[in-house]
Amino acid sequence: VYGSFIIGNVTLPTFLNLPERGSKPRATGLTHVLDKGASVAATEGVLTTAAEHVDIWKFGWGIAYLDPGLSTKLKLLADAGVLSCVGGTLLEIAWTQGTAHRCLDWAGQVGFPCVEVSRGVAAMTLEAKSELVRRAASRFVVLSEVGRKDPRADLDPGQWAVEVAADLESGARWVIAEGRESGTVGLYDADGAVREEVVTAVVGAGGVDKVLFEAPRKDQQAWFIRRFGPDVNLANIALDDALPLETLRRGLRADTFDPQAQRVRT
Amino acid sequence: VYGSFIIGNVTLPTFLNLPERGSKPRATGLTHVLDKGASVAATEGVLTTAAEHVDIWKFGWGIAYLDPGLSTKLKLLADAGVLSCVGGTLLEIAWTQGTAHRCLDWAGQVGFPCVEVSRGVAAMTLEAKSELVRRAASRFVVLSEVGRKDPRADLDPGQWAVEVAADLESGARWVIAEGRESGTVGLYDADGAVREEVVTAVVGAGGVDKVLFEAPRKDQQAWFIRRFGPDVNLANIALDDALPLETLRRGLRADTFDPQAQRVRT
Amino acid sequence: VYGSFIIGNVTLPTFLNLPERGSKPRATGLTHVLDKGASVAATEGVLTTAAEHVDIWKFGWGIAYLDPGLSTKLKLLADAGVLSCVGGTLLEIAWTQGTAHRCLDWAGQVGFPCVEVSRGVAAMTLEAKSELVRRAASRFVVLSEVGRKDPRADLDPGQWAVEVAADLESGARWVIAEGRESGTVGLYDADGAVREEVVTAVVGAGGVDKVLFEAPRKDQQAWFIRRFGPDVNLANIALDDALPLETLRRGLRADTFDPQAQRVRT
Repeated sequence: VYGSFIIGNVTLPTFLNLPERGSKPRATGLTHVLDKGASVAATEGVLTTAAEHVDIWKFGWGIAYLDPGLSTKLKLLADAGVLSCVGGTLLEIAWTQGTAHRCLDWAGQVGFPCVEVSRGVAAMTLEAKSELVRRAASRFVVLSEVGRKDPRADLDPGQWAVEVAADLESGARWVIAEGRESGTVGLYDADGAVREEVVTAVVGAGGVDKVLFEAPRKDQQAWFIRRFGPDVNLANIALDDALPLETLRRGLRADTFDPQAQRVRT
Repeated sequence: VYGSFIIGNVTLPTFLNLPERGSKPRATGLTHVLDKGASVAATEGVLTTAAEHVDIWKFGWGIAYLDPGLSTKLKLLADAGVLSCVGGTLLEIAWTQGTAHRCLDWAGQVGFPCVEVSRGVAAMTLEAKSELVRRAASRFVVLSEVGRKDPRADLDPGQWAVEVAADLESGARWVIAEGRESGTVGLYDADGAVREEVVTAVVGAGGVDKVLFEAPRKDQQAWFIRRFGPDVNLANIALDDALPLETLRRGLRADTFDPQAQRVRT
Repeated sequence: VYGSFIIGNVTLPTFLNLPERGSKPRATGLTHVLDKGASVAATEGVLTTAAEHVDIWKFGWGIAYLDPGLSTKLKLLADAGVLSCVGGTLLEIAWTQGTAHRCLDWAGQVGFPCVEVSRGVAAMTLEAKSELVRRAASRFVVLSEVGRKDPRADLDPGQWAVEVAADLESGARWVIAEGRESGTVGLYDADGAVREEVVTAVVGAGGVDKVLFEAPRKDQQAWFIRRFGPDVNLANIALDDALPLETLRRGLRADTFDPQAQRVRT
């Protein structure tokens, strides 16, 4: 992609100087997408268009529990080198009902390589969450999530920092900072503006490479890219926004293109 | 679905205690989706993913009049046990032009089992609407709609109640309470908040099982589910939200999951 | 479409009196859609549903530079009689890097019949833009774009008029008035309301037939149709809104249906 275009049988030279991006599997610069129940055909469409740019594919909340295409999709995703992840809410519900272990067994049997461990709605202490992270990390790549889903129950920056550090200590590979599908809670205020003090706390506690920022809106994605560069980890990206996000990362859209930083035209 | 998962050749036990939901054909707990002109392929995608959760498929406003896939889609929907419905605006336009009878003939010939009778934009009296409901009900399952599309022309709760009762009396199987694709008129104020006095009036007049609430937004869907339970009838659901709505009905998403109501973890 | 419906082997009469619309290739009444990276399958879906209503297909900003389906999609679009267009931002970036000529060579080699010339983000003078329009017009159908993407840098109506006239003088076939994907800049204020003084200036300078108004939102589309009639040129339409827009143009949706203008029911 960087050196040339292949169009049919013809190879054409590229004509832009863009930021480099690593190839998969990536440790940073991750794109994590949110699946709300895409059909098998729609999943194939996303993968043919953007598989090289998608690292983690989350089946949101309890979608995996009802999705009739689950098994087929997990195979397609594995073949495309995309990590599939169970939504954290599903595990929270199971935990509340006393069946977290059965949820984890199920996730392994159907073929998920990743699970998300969160306490966004369940009445779970931080200690109980740490134990669940540890238990899950013995069998899965664990993404933990920090932040409540109800804006009235939100954490202060110090609490965010403590929980990020605790999750990584307990074995989470990455920590997701909450923003939901709407981008109006957790990292954001009700208008979707970034709560910078939360970002600072989270990065201070975990390091920017260990945090995935949920950023469903274009303006939020652009904010993180301008702040941390093209290799910031971004989560809860809508399936159809995977390729548009990659253009933002590379400065191919007005929101992240900086005319001053480019080579001057001669 | 309730007793086990079938993944490939393997049957896995379920691990959650969720609200029961009836199977099709349903008299209540209906999901009514809004088609804005989906392609045949997209229609197949929705049906493979969510056919068991979709009861009624409305071709919005005048979409059916231009949709080149109409005939193929009607067959697919019939085969999947989904009731197809003509949008009310199309019949209103025909009525205004004096060709309502030809619109109904056409609907029958192309194979619609349902029509919607509304007076959201036409200058139609309640008496004229009742006559149209009666005429249509002799050949179709009729869904009537109550509520104006222009917020400046909206009805007061008493008028809503009168019209709901009249429509059912005239032969409508169900009554749809207006919210449009936007969720900002009829049942809702301009911000999308529920006008509870309208809900109360509509339910008082028709009974909750006879009313379909247009609820295009997730917060609106969650409001009705929390208020009336998982088997509330919801309408104007975006095609891609059919499966997400089913997760809301079953308490599989934060918005309708109630940690207090669940079995305590031991 | 106007005289009858063909459903399977059966031809049914139409029953509505609607505004006439021309057929492709059109000089006015254009629908210009925005592609954010649709898969080949999704592209086929749009074309089977709405090809006769879509005139120009823009690969937004730098999407074409990363889209792995580019070559296949260009063929499908050409076969369907839809003009493909490179996004203006891509050419702006190339111009900033001193490789505009290579960008144009590439566009010709991959098979784009149209390019967009804009200065929405680049530090490009009007004179430089005019030169680029002239250069591009020797090989492509040129759509120029007027309006800045940053609301803080926006033009006054007089500046809009000057630039529209200059672009047409330099060889642009049509001029696009900026609204972005969001509909909150350029032609619109931050709430999406139309800046009527800009519309007046643009139409005064170019003539309504020469201008494409970016109108991503339904209320914006309806505003232009009510103001200028069904054959107004509209741009940046979401792919899935191509058929819904056509219903708006023909008065098949509440927003553009005028009960007073219709034949009285007898």
